[in-house]
Amino acid sequence: MAEMLSVVFPKGFRVGAGRGGLKTTGDDIMLLVADETANAAAMFTTNRMFAAPVRYSREITAKGRARAVVANAGNANAATGDAGYADAVEMAKIAAGHAGCSGDEVFVASTGVIGKPLDMAKVRVGVAEAASRMGSDAPAAAAAALAIMTTDTRPKAVQREIAIGGKAVRIGGITKGAGMISPRVATMLAFLTTDAVISPRALRKALAAAAEKSFNRVTIDGDMSTNDSVFLFASGKSNALALEKGAEFSAFVAGLTEVCADLAKMMAADGEGATKFVTVRVTGAADDKAALAQARAIANSPLVKTALFGSDPNWGRVLAAAGYAGAPFEEKKAVLAFNGVRAFENGVPQPKTGPIVDAMKARDITIELDLGLGKGEAVVYTCDYSYDYIKINAEYHT
Amino acid sequence: MAEMLSVVFPKGFRVGAGRGGLKTTGDDIMLLVADETANAAAMFTTNRMFAAPVRYSREITAKGRARAVVANAGNANAATGDAGYADAVEMAKIAAGHAGCSGDEVFVASTGVIGKPLDMAKVRVGVAEAASRMGSDAPAAAAAALAIMTTDTRPKAVQREIAIGGKAVRIGGITKGAGMISPRVATMLAFLTTDAVISPRALRKALAAAAEKSFNRVTIDGDMSTNDSVFLFASGKSNALALEKGAEFSAFVAGLTEVCADLAKMMAADGEGATKFVTVRVTGAADDKAALAQARAIANSPLVKTALFGSDPNWGRVLAAAGYAGAPFEEKKAVLAFNGVRAFENGVPQPKTGPIVDAMKARDITIELDLGLGKGEAVVYTCDYSYDYIKINAEYHT
Repeated sequence: MAEMLSVVFPKGFRVGAGRGGLKTTGDDIMLLVADETANAAAMFTTNRMFAAPVRYSREITAKGRARAVVANAGNANAATGDAGYADAVEMAKIAAGHAGCSGDEVFVASTGVIGKPLDMAKVRVGVAEAASRMGSDAPAAAAAALAIMTTDTRPKAVQREIAIGGKAVRIGGITKGAGMISPRVATMLAFLTTDAVISPRALRKALAAAAEKSFNRVTIDGDMSTNDSVFLFASGKSNALALEKGAEFSAFVAGLTEVCADLAKMMAADGEGATKFVTVRVTGAADDKAALAQARAIANSPLVKTALFGSDPNWGRVLAAAGYAGAPFEEKKAVLAFNGVRAFENGVPQPKTGPIVDAMKARDITIELDLGLGKGEAVVYTCDYSYDYIKINAEYHT
Repeated sequence: MAEMLSVVFPKGFRVGAGRGGLKTTGDDIMLLVADETANAAAMFTTNRMFAAPVRYSREITAKGRARAVVANAGNANAATGDAGYADAVEMAKIAAGHAGCSGDEVFVASTGVIGKPLDMAKVRVGVAEAASRMGSDAPAAAAAALAIMTTDTRPKAVQREIAIGGKAVRIGGITKGAGMISPRVATMLAFLTTDAVISPRALRKALAAAAEKSFNRVTIDGDMSTNDSVFLFASGKSNALALEKGAEFSAFVAGLTEVCADLAKMMAADGEGATKFVTVRVTGAADDKAALAQARAIANSPLVKTALFGSDPNWGRVLAAAGYAGAPFEEKKAVLAFNGVRAFENGVPQPKTGPIVDAMKARDITIELDLGLGKGEAVVYTCDYSYDYIKINAEYHT
C-alpha cells in the first residue's frame, strides 16, 4: 500500500501541524499552504448561526483563488461577536506572514467550544510551530490529520490517483468529524487538494457535486454545526488537461466524489460514541428527493439509532420513520432488509426474528428499504447512539 | 384535594381495567364506556405508516358518535397486515358485547410491540375482566390510568371543572406517554371525557384547537408513532348550555386545552429516561410558525438534550438549533436565558458561566430565547436525553 500523503499527495502543497495549547494535549493548529496561489473553492454550513471563521472564509471564497488555509481545534470562535471576527481576520494574517502571502489569500477554520474568545497568543505560537514544520511527506500529512481532531477517535485521510486523458491527476483530503474535545455543536471540517488544472468556476461546480453525494449524506445526530467547512485547492501542477467540461470534468468529479465519500464514511463510522457504521439505502421511492428525505428520517431517528446500538430487531421504527418523512409511503409495498435479511414484506413481518438479530449484530449494517413506488433512491451514512454518545455530550465543558 | 376521578369525573361514564397477559405484569386492557351513545371526536397520528387500530378507529370517527373505547398495552397491532385489521375489528366487537352496543360504536387503541400478531385469546380475557370491574369511582379511574402504561413510570390523570353560563361542566382525561414496555416507537394515547352538551362538529373543532396547543407541543425524541391517538367523548349530561360557538364555546376550549396541556406536560416530564422537564419558549420570532419551528428544533436537538442531562452550559447548541430551523435568525438580536439567567445577548456570551450552570441544575428548566425580530412565539415541552433513554430503547425486545 502506498504511503498516506493525503493533502500533500497532489503536487504543489505543504502542510504542517503545531501546538498552541487550545486543546488539552497534542497539536491543535494545522497550516496547509500551496506553493503558489491556487484556484480554490469552499462550502460552508447553511446554519444561520455561523461562526466568525465561516463569515470570514465566505468572503475569501468569492475570489476563487487562495494560497493557504489555517485551522485550529479546541475553540470554535462562534458566538463571539465582532471581536471574534477580528480574531479570525488576525489568524489569517498570522498564517499569511508565514506563508508569504496576504491575509486575504488565507482561509480560516475553527472547531471546538462555542462562546469563548479565541486565545490569540496561543494561536500565534501554534501557527508559528506549524509553519516551521511544514513538509510534503507522510509524517507532516499524518500530523495535520491529527491536529484537527477533537472527539474524533482516529485521523481520517484519503488519497486517490485518477487518469484523465492519459495523465495522472491526484486528489487528497483529510477531515475531522462529529465531535469536540469539549463538546459543543459537532463540527465537520474537510481539507482537500488536487493538482488538477481547473478553473475556479469548474472547481466550485465539482465540489458542490461531490459534497452533495458525500458530506451532505452523513448524519450523526441531525444537528447542524455553526462551523462546518469544506475547502478544496487546485494547484494545477499535474500537467493533465484542463478539466472544464465533458468527459474530463466528469472523470474528475467522479474521483473527487470518491475521495469525499470515503472521508464521509470515515466520519460516520467515527461518530460520537459510535459502535456501528450504518448505511441507509432507500430505493423505489417516488423520486430522489423523497428517497433522500426518507433515508435522512431513518438515519436521524433516535429510536432507530438506539435499536442499532442494542442490535434490537425493532425494524418497525425504520418503517415508522419512512412514514413520517413527508413523502409517499405504502405499507404493503415496502420491503425492508438488514444486511440482506428480510424483515418486512407484503405488509407483514417475516416470522423469524433470529436471522434479523444475527444480521444486526454486525459492525457494519446496511438498512435497505425498497418502497416499491417509483425509481427514486438515496444513500445516507450514519452510526448508532450508544451510552457514550450521551456521555460525550453531557459532560461538563469546564 | 378532590378525589382523582379523571375520565369518570364527568357524568355519564364508567371505566374498568383488566389483565389479558399482553404485558409482563399488571392490567393491560382498559375499557371506557359512556352510559349512552355519546358525541365523540378523535385525532390520530399523521404518520403514513399507521397501525391497524388507527385505520379502524379513523373509520368510526367519521360518524361523530361512539359508545366506548377499548385499549390495550403490550402490543401495537402495527405492521400486522389485513389480519391485524381484522383483529382490531374483532377487539371492538368483543368490547361492544360487554358494553351493550354494536362494534361500530367502539374505538380501539393499541400500544406496544410492532410487527407481532395480537393474541386475541388474551384480549378476550382482559376485556371481560375490565368490563366486570367497570365503575365510576376513584379506584376504577386509577386502574385505568395504570392499565394503559408501557414504559411510563407513573400514571397520568387530570380532571377539571369549569363554569359555563353558571353551570358546571366537567372535563377529565388520562394519557400514556412516550415509552413502551418492549420498546418500539414511542406512542402517546389520550382518553378524554366531558359532560358538556356539544355537537360532534363543535367537539371536533374544540379537540383540534386544544391538541394543537398541548399534545402537538410535546416532543420526546422527534419520532412520530404509528399508533398515536386521542379520543374525546361528550356525554351531554351536565345540564349546561349547548356549546356551539361564542363565549361558551371559547370557555370550553380553554378548559379542554388546560386539561390537555397538563397531560402533555406530564408526558414530557415522564419521557423515556427523563431526569428533567424542559419548557422551550421562543419569543420575538418572525411569526408564530417560525417560532414553533425554532422551538421544535431546540427541543429535538440531541445535543441540547444531552447538555440538559449533564447540566452543561452548552447554550451555543440552543442558538445553533434555532439557526438551522429554517426560519429567520440574527445572532446579534438574540437573547438567551435559562430559568431567567442570561447566557447570550448583543452577540456575545455573558462572561460568567457559574450562574448558568446553577440554573441548569434545576429539575424543571425553561429555555427562553427571544429572537428580537417580530411578535411570533411558541412553547414546546420536552425532556433531556439520559443514559436511560439509550438503555430503554436499545434493550432486546425478546
